[in-house]
Amino acid sequence: MLKIEHIGIAVKSLKNSNELFYKLFGKAHYKIEEVLSEGVNTSFFEFQDTKIELLEATREDSPIAKFIDRRGEGIHHIAFEVADITSEMSRLKDLGFQILNETPKKGADNKLVCFLHPKSTNGVLVELCQEIKD
Amino acid sequence: MLKIEHIGIAVKSLKNSNELFYKLFGKAHYKIEEVLSEGVNTSFFEFQDTKIELLEATREDSPIAKFIDRRGEGIHHIAFEVADITSEMSRLKDLGFQILNETPKKGADNKLVCFLHPKSTNGVLVELCQEIKD
Repeated sequence: MLKIEHIGIAVKSLKNSNELFYKLFGKAHYKIEEVLSEGVNTSFFEFQDTKIELLEATREDSPIAKFIDRRGEGIHHIAFEVADITSEMSRLKDLGFQILNETPKKGADNKLVCFLHPKSTNGVLVELCQEIKD
Repeated sequence: MLKIEHIGIAVKSLKNSNELFYKLFGKAHYKIEEVLSEGVNTSFFEFQDTKIELLEATREDSPIAKFIDRRGEGIHHIAFEVADITSEMSRLKDLGFQILNETPKKGADNKLVCFLHPKSTNGVLVELCQEIKD
């Protein structure tokens, strides 16, 4: 794994939380992006070579809506950048980690992503991501 | 806030989790440190300019023991490096954030630290930290 690409935080209202984190960080988010496949609206704050991603559900069956129902707002996942997502998924599967999507899917921020089940990673929802090169 | 200094993960057994995250990350922790005041044993994994910190409770009244009792293992906090912790605490207090310790305290990794109450930060336990310069 190359670096911590971002940390995802589940929020009820992107608008309110963009304001809250603006105050906390002393700087504003630099972009907003909707990810239709996941049912989320996202915003990003930059910190050197990593990011904070806020995630707001856009529909009831969104993973973020379910997370907030169960645990409330808070840290949702950690994403790690990998050079080759397919080979990394295969390496981790061989080591006994549980992959949540068998093939990489399109995530926010021009990335191919996959998630590991928190049961196999000490309760941490881990995302792997690889930049899509056109 | 200058950068994401580290992400803290609460674990039941530092020994088992060091092995698990070694497999996950493909690299080992580079140090272990006990923080007596917090009742924790910690280990650190490096990722460019940020880190993952694993935290294991060393006594029953440790904040980590209470966290695991309540929520299970998982992501515990995000720590941000600041240039001047006292002035940052004052800035955030004026903005309505709830500071958990009124004066900075000695944390792991040669840092002065303070925590913000998750109720004022969207459910995220936020740590501020400043390197102690001798």
